Amino acid sequence: MTGRFITFEGLDGSGKSTQLDRLAQRLKVRGVAHVVTREPGGTPFADLLRELFLSRETSRVDGVVELMLVFASRRQHLIEVIEPALASGAVVLCDRFTDSTCAYQGGGRGVPPELIAEVDRLATGCRAPDRTLFFDLSPEEARRRRRGRTADRIDRESLAFYRRVRAAFRERIAGDPDRFRVIDGAAPIETVAEAVEEALSDLLKPPGRDLREPKRRDRAGNA
Amino acid sequence: MTGRFITFEGLDGSGKSTQLDRLAQRLKVRGVAHVVTREPGGTPFADLLRELFLSRETSRVDGVVELMLVFASRRQHLIEVIEPALASGAVVLCDRFTDSTCAYQGGGRGVPPELIAEVDRLATGCRAPDRTLFFDLSPEEARRRRRGRTADRIDRESLAFYRRVRAAFRERIAGDPDRFRVIDGAAPIETVAEAVEEALSDLLKPPGRDLREPKRRDRAGNA
Repeated sequence: MTGRFITFEGLDGSGKSTQLDRLAQRLKVRGVAHVVTREPGGTPFADLLRELFLSRETSRVDGVVELMLVFASRRQHLIEVIEPALASGAVVLCDRFTDSTCAYQGGGRGVPPELIAEVDRLATGCRAPDRTLFFDLSPEEARRRRRGRTADRIDRESLAFYRRVRAAFRERIAGDPDRFRVIDGAAPIETVAEAVEEALSDLLKPPGRDLREPKRRDRAGNA
Repeated sequence: MTGRFITFEGLDGSGKSTQLDRLAQRLKVRGVAHVVTREPGGTPFADLLRELFLSRETSRVDGVVELMLVFASRRQHLIEVIEPALASGAVVLCDRFTDSTCAYQGGGRGVPPELIAEVDRLATGCRAPDRTLFFDLSPEEARRRRRGRTADRIDRESLAFYRRVRAAFRERIAGDPDRFRVIDGAAPIETVAEAVEEALSDLLKPPGRDLREPKRRDRAGNA
């Protein structure tokens, strides 16, 4: 039995991390084996790389170099954390993955998508999650939420940046509609939590407990 | 006017670093602008990556991840150090470059050459030096020399490893004979220094000073 690889994507402030934590809590209550992880990071190695990025010495790191480091870190994260957890049958909940690289580095900063795809192929074989929840929220509303959280100076330029990021996310969704579920991030928190449950109901249904839709479960594969 | 990119390759103990230093001294005496650098390393960023490799936390880093880090570091080294020096007209003397990755990671540890080539293409566009000096020495003699230098435990296995490394170097040379000059690393140190001069005479001849072989200098291009 292999587990399920589920990623949470969205703008900063979209509520994805909150909803990931809440889902993890519910899985815990139900006794479903699961692993919570995040990117960038997730391994001691990746955390070191993260430090390296943030260090003053590397402020002028080239864009392709940054991309190679992001995907080197992702590969190590897959090998060390994600794939072993899936192999053990656990549900993996990952806060951001390759879609974020495409949205932020690609859409936001203008790194060519074909270059990202090339490094992705090399590093991960274009490993895709089983399902990705995209928490959709307008850049303006995301900004309001972030303001409440930190003292970030968010100006017009960054609003334009987040519009490009959101547009890039939407392009990813259009290109792989079966994998994505778009969730209204502007809804009340409980409503969003219910939408998360609904969006994952076919994947997280415990085998043998629900007899109502055996066909649907079978079609989903390996349940 | 652009400079010359010259790399020094060979087994550990082959004398390449000694000869690089001696050549740098001679260039200094002659007033030839030059930059001495080395791999892995050469930039603060690359040095950080090097530390990352050597840290205990990353001892189980995957082979492809390692390759991506090596070439990310190399790209940064090219952008930050090598290309600007060449653009300024300087001679760049670099201790190890991509040939070493092919020889050690490829030949020595069995990373597929086509994978190395792919990462190289992505990271550097397969950037090749103008000339590469290969200091040839038998693995047995290289071992004897290293023994005098450090207290490394070198066993049969590592002798086999160095044989594979040397074979991989020879393959690189066979594939690009115009770029390489093979120098007998077993010769006395002064003889080797003369061979280095001879191997670079067309590249390092100062323009307009030597009138004996104008044709040969012209054919070498851009002298």
